[in-house]
Amino acid sequence: MTTGQAQKQQTQKTSDKAMTQKAKTAITPTRDEDFPGWYQNVIKAADFAENSPVRGCMVIKPYGFALWENIQRALDDMIKEEGVQNAYFPLLIPLSFISREAEHVDGFAKECAVVTHHRLEKGAEGGLVPAPAAALEEPYVVRPTSETIIGHSMAKWVQSYRDLPMKLNQWCNVMRWEMRTRMFLRTSEFLWQEGHNAFATADQANADARKMLNVYNRLYTDWFAMPGICGEKTADERFPGALHTYTIESMMQDGKALQACTSHDLGLNFAKSFEIQYQGEDGAMHHAYTTSWGFSTRSIGGLIMAHGDDDGVILPPRLAPHQIALLPVVRDDDKAAVMEACQNLAVALKAKGIRVHFDDSDERTSDKMWRAIKKGVPLRVEMGPRDLESGTVVHTRREIGRDSKTSMNINEFVDKAQAILDDIQADLLRRAQASLDARTFDLATLAEARDFFADENSNGFVRIDSALLDHDDFQKLAKDFSVTPRCLPFADEGRKAVIGKSY
Amino acid sequence: MTTGQAQKQQTQKTSDKAMTQKAKTAITPTRDEDFPGWYQNVIKAADFAENSPVRGCMVIKPYGFALWENIQRALDDMIKEEGVQNAYFPLLIPLSFISREAEHVDGFAKECAVVTHHRLEKGAEGGLVPAPAAALEEPYVVRPTSETIIGHSMAKWVQSYRDLPMKLNQWCNVMRWEMRTRMFLRTSEFLWQEGHNAFATADQANADARKMLNVYNRLYTDWFAMPGICGEKTADERFPGALHTYTIESMMQDGKALQACTSHDLGLNFAKSFEIQYQGEDGAMHHAYTTSWGFSTRSIGGLIMAHGDDDGVILPPRLAPHQIALLPVVRDDDKAAVMEACQNLAVALKAKGIRVHFDDSDERTSDKMWRAIKKGVPLRVEMGPRDLESGTVVHTRREIGRDSKTSMNINEFVDKAQAILDDIQADLLRRAQASLDARTFDLATLAEARDFFADENSNGFVRIDSALLDHDDFQKLAKDFSVTPRCLPFADEGRKAVIGKSY
Repeated sequence: MTTGQAQKQQTQKTSDKAMTQKAKTAITPTRDEDFPGWYQNVIKAADFAENSPVRGCMVIKPYGFALWENIQRALDDMIKEEGVQNAYFPLLIPLSFISREAEHVDGFAKECAVVTHHRLEKGAEGGLVPAPAAALEEPYVVRPTSETIIGHSMAKWVQSYRDLPMKLNQWCNVMRWEMRTRMFLRTSEFLWQEGHNAFATADQANADARKMLNVYNRLYTDWFAMPGICGEKTADERFPGALHTYTIESMMQDGKALQACTSHDLGLNFAKSFEIQYQGEDGAMHHAYTTSWGFSTRSIGGLIMAHGDDDGVILPPRLAPHQIALLPVVRDDDKAAVMEACQNLAVALKAKGIRVHFDDSDERTSDKMWRAIKKGVPLRVEMGPRDLESGTVVHTRREIGRDSKTSMNINEFVDKAQAILDDIQADLLRRAQASLDARTFDLATLAEARDFFADENSNGFVRIDSALLDHDDFQKLAKDFSVTPRCLPFADEGRKAVIGKSY
Repeated sequence: MTTGQAQKQQTQKTSDKAMTQKAKTAITPTRDEDFPGWYQNVIKAADFAENSPVRGCMVIKPYGFALWENIQRALDDMIKEEGVQNAYFPLLIPLSFISREAEHVDGFAKECAVVTHHRLEKGAEGGLVPAPAAALEEPYVVRPTSETIIGHSMAKWVQSYRDLPMKLNQWCNVMRWEMRTRMFLRTSEFLWQEGHNAFATADQANADARKMLNVYNRLYTDWFAMPGICGEKTADERFPGALHTYTIESMMQDGKALQACTSHDLGLNFAKSFEIQYQGEDGAMHHAYTTSWGFSTRSIGGLIMAHGDDDGVILPPRLAPHQIALLPVVRDDDKAAVMEACQNLAVALKAKGIRVHFDDSDERTSDKMWRAIKKGVPLRVEMGPRDLESGTVVHTRREIGRDSKTSMNINEFVDKAQAILDDIQADLLRRAQASLDARTFDLATLAEARDFFADENSNGFVRIDSALLDHDDFQKLAKDFSVTPRCLPFADEGRKAVIGKSY
C-alpha cells in the first residue's frame, strides 16, 4: 500500500468508527474507543481468565483452559510428527546453571522468582515465615526457560552421532517476574511448550530452527486463522545466547504487532556452556548444534486481538471449545418437545464429530444468545416451536452476525454444519489476511515512516529498506514512538525490515 | 489366608528364590536380593527417568513421559465424563493463604520451596545472588497442593445454588521438600492432577469423594491392571483439614503398601476458611461442602513394583507406549526384504490402532530383544528370512517369556494381535489380584500380627479387627516394625483394618 492509500484507509476507518458507535455493543469500551480496555473486558465477558491474588499471575478459567487444551492437542500432534519426544525437567534451576551462558544471564534471566528456603515455621507474630535454619546453600530460580537444565541432561544423553538429531519438548509453566502485566499477553507465570533440539551440523540446526517456525506458522494459519510475517529478528531483538532468532509477527486489530512465537538457532553457545558433545563418525569429539523453540498461552491473547469484535471474542471453529451453541426457544407450554428435539439435534451433530454446547439452562433465550456471542461460539443454532413444526432450524454465524441468519431443513443442516464451520474458519483467515495486507505499508524513507507513526490515526506495519535500521534517525524514530524492528521477513531475503509498535 | 497358609507361601517364596538365582536376569540385584536396588535399576534399564542436579527432583525421560501421557489421557477422559472441567491456578501461593486453614498448616504445609526474592544480581564474588532490594514483602510457597488458592477462586465463582456442583481439576507440578527421595515414589517436585469439587450438601460431597476414588479404582483396575484395597484412612493418616480421607492401597511385590491415590471429604473446613458460600433456594447464605482428589506420577512407581520381574518392568498393554516391539532378524544379504516386510507389518498393525515400535536400528537382534524386555513392551514380534518364506511371524509375551513363543501366520497374527494384547492385560490383573489375595492375612490378635511382622521372611497386608488399633500394643507394634494402618476397607464397613509396611 502507498501512503496515499494509507490515508484513504484511515479515512475509511474513521467513518467505520462513526458507524460502530451508533450500534449497541456487548463490550464497552469498543475497540476504537480504548483497545486495551476492550481487550480486558472481552476476556472477562468470554470467561477466559481472571487476575489472581498472586502478583502478576492469572487464573485460567475452564472455558479459557478448554481453548488452550485444543491448541495444545493440535500443536502436540504436529510436534510429534516432526519426531520430537516429550519429557519433563525440573521446575527449579540452580543459580550456577543460569550463570553459565554469559549472554543468557545478561539478557533476561534476572527477573525471576528466587527460592531461598525449604521450610516454613511459625514467626514471632504468629504467622508463617521462612525458617532461617532452612536457608538453601545455593538458591534456585523458578525456570524462566530451560535451555540450561535441559542442556545439562542433553550433555549426558548425546554421546554418539547415532544419538543425533535429538528432539525434546516439554509442556510446562515458566515464570518471569513482570512489573506490568496483561492477561495472556504478559504474566509472571505462563504456560508454554519449549522444544530443545540438537544436531550434528550447523546447517541442520539452522534448517530445523526455521522448520519449527514453519510448524508454528501452519498452526497459526490452519488452526488460529491468523496469518503472520515470518522472518528473522535483528541482533538487538535476539534471544540472549542465540545466533539467530526467528519469529512470527502477527498483526492485532489496533495495528500493533504481537510476537506470536519464536524459534532460535543457538549455534554452539549452549553446547559449549553445557558440554553437549558427541563422538562423530570420524571418532573425534564434536560439540552439537542446538535450537530451542517456544509457543505459549500468549497466543490466546493474539487470537482475541486478531479476530474479536465489539461484541467480544470470535473463535475459529477448529479451536473453539464449543463449535455450535444450540439454543432452545421455549415457552412454558411446549418446552418438553423443543428440548427433546434439541437433544436429538445435539446427538446428531456430535455424531458428526462437532463440538456442540446445548444450553439447556433456565435463562432467557436472549441471555443465552448474548453469552454465546461473547464466548465467540462460531455458529449459533436456534430451535423453537415453529421450527419444530416446519422441521427447520435457524443458524447464525458469529463472524458475520444477523445478516447470516438462515433457516434450513434440519437434516440438511446436520449434513452441512461441518462445511459451514469450515467456511467460517476460511472466512476468518481471509479477513485477517486482508487486514494484514491493508495495513502493511511500504515506505521509502525514514521521514515518511516518521510521519506515519506521528499520526495518531495511523496504525500498522511499515516495511522499509533494512539498511535504514542502521541510521541514527531510525533510533530516534524508534525511541519517540516506541517502534521496534519486528523482523526481517524471509520473503524479502533480508533486504526489507518490518517495523511497528508491539505488545 | 491363615497363618499356616502364610508359612507355606513363605516356603514357596524361598524355593522360588533359589530358582531365580540360577537364571541370569537382566536386572541386578533381583527383587529377592534387594527390592529397592532392583527398583532403581529397573527405572534405569527402562529409560524412564533419572536423578537431576536439583535436590530431590527427577528428570522424566521421553519413554517414561510417554507412559505418563497415556495415563493422563485415560484419566482425563474419565474425569471429564464426571462433568469435571480443567482449569489452571497459580504456581505460587501467598503465605497468608497457607496459614488460613489451621490443621492444613500444622499437617504438612511446612516443608515447601519458599520464594523470597524476585530478582537476581551479580554478587560480590561474581556469581548471581538474590537482589536484596528485590525481597518480597510477603513470600510465596511453590504449591504443595492447591486447596487454598483454588478455594479463593471458588469463593468468587460459587454464588448461587445454581453454580453447584462445581467440579474443577488441574494437571500441574507441585513441590514438597523431601529429605529422602526415591524416583516416582517420593520426589520434591512431582506431576499430578488435583480435583476440587464443591457441593450444596454434606451427603453430596461425601458421595462424590467416594465416587472419585472409584474413578481412580477403575483406572487402576482397567488400565494399570492393579487391584487395590479401597477404604478410609484412620484419623491419624487423614489429609490435614479433611473429615474423611479415602485411599486405594496397592500391594507391591515386596508386600509393602503403596498409597496409590487419595480422595478427601473436606466438609466445611476449607469453605469456612475461604468463605465459599452460596445463596440457597431458600434465599439464605450457606457454606459449600468441598472435596479434593489427587493422582500423581507416583502411580508409575506403583506400576513398576506391582508388575515388574527380574528382567525389568512389565507394562500393561493399555498404557504401554509401545504395545508391540517389532524386531527384524537380518543377515546382510537379505536385509532389504525383511525390513520391507517388517515395515508392511508395522503399517498393518498400526491400522488396527496398535502402537508398534519397529526397531530398525543397526544393533544386534539380541540387544534389541533385551531392550524391549527391559522396557516392558508387552509383546515382541520377530521376523526373519525364514518367516518371510513361510509367511509367519514369531511372537513372545513379555509377562510369560520364552514359554509363550509362538509362530503364527502373519495375517492371522495381524487379526489376533489386539486379542493377544487384551489377554496380556487380563493376565497381569489376574496375577496381581492373586498376589494381593495370597498375601493378605486375616489375623485375630495383635500378638499374631506382631509375630508376622517380626518374621523377616513374611510380607504382606494384615487384616485385623479395627478395634485393635486403639490398643497400646498396636502403637508398639507400629513403632517397632514401621507398620501403619493402611485403611479401613469399604468392604468391611469399618469393622476391619488393613495394616502393613508402606512406601
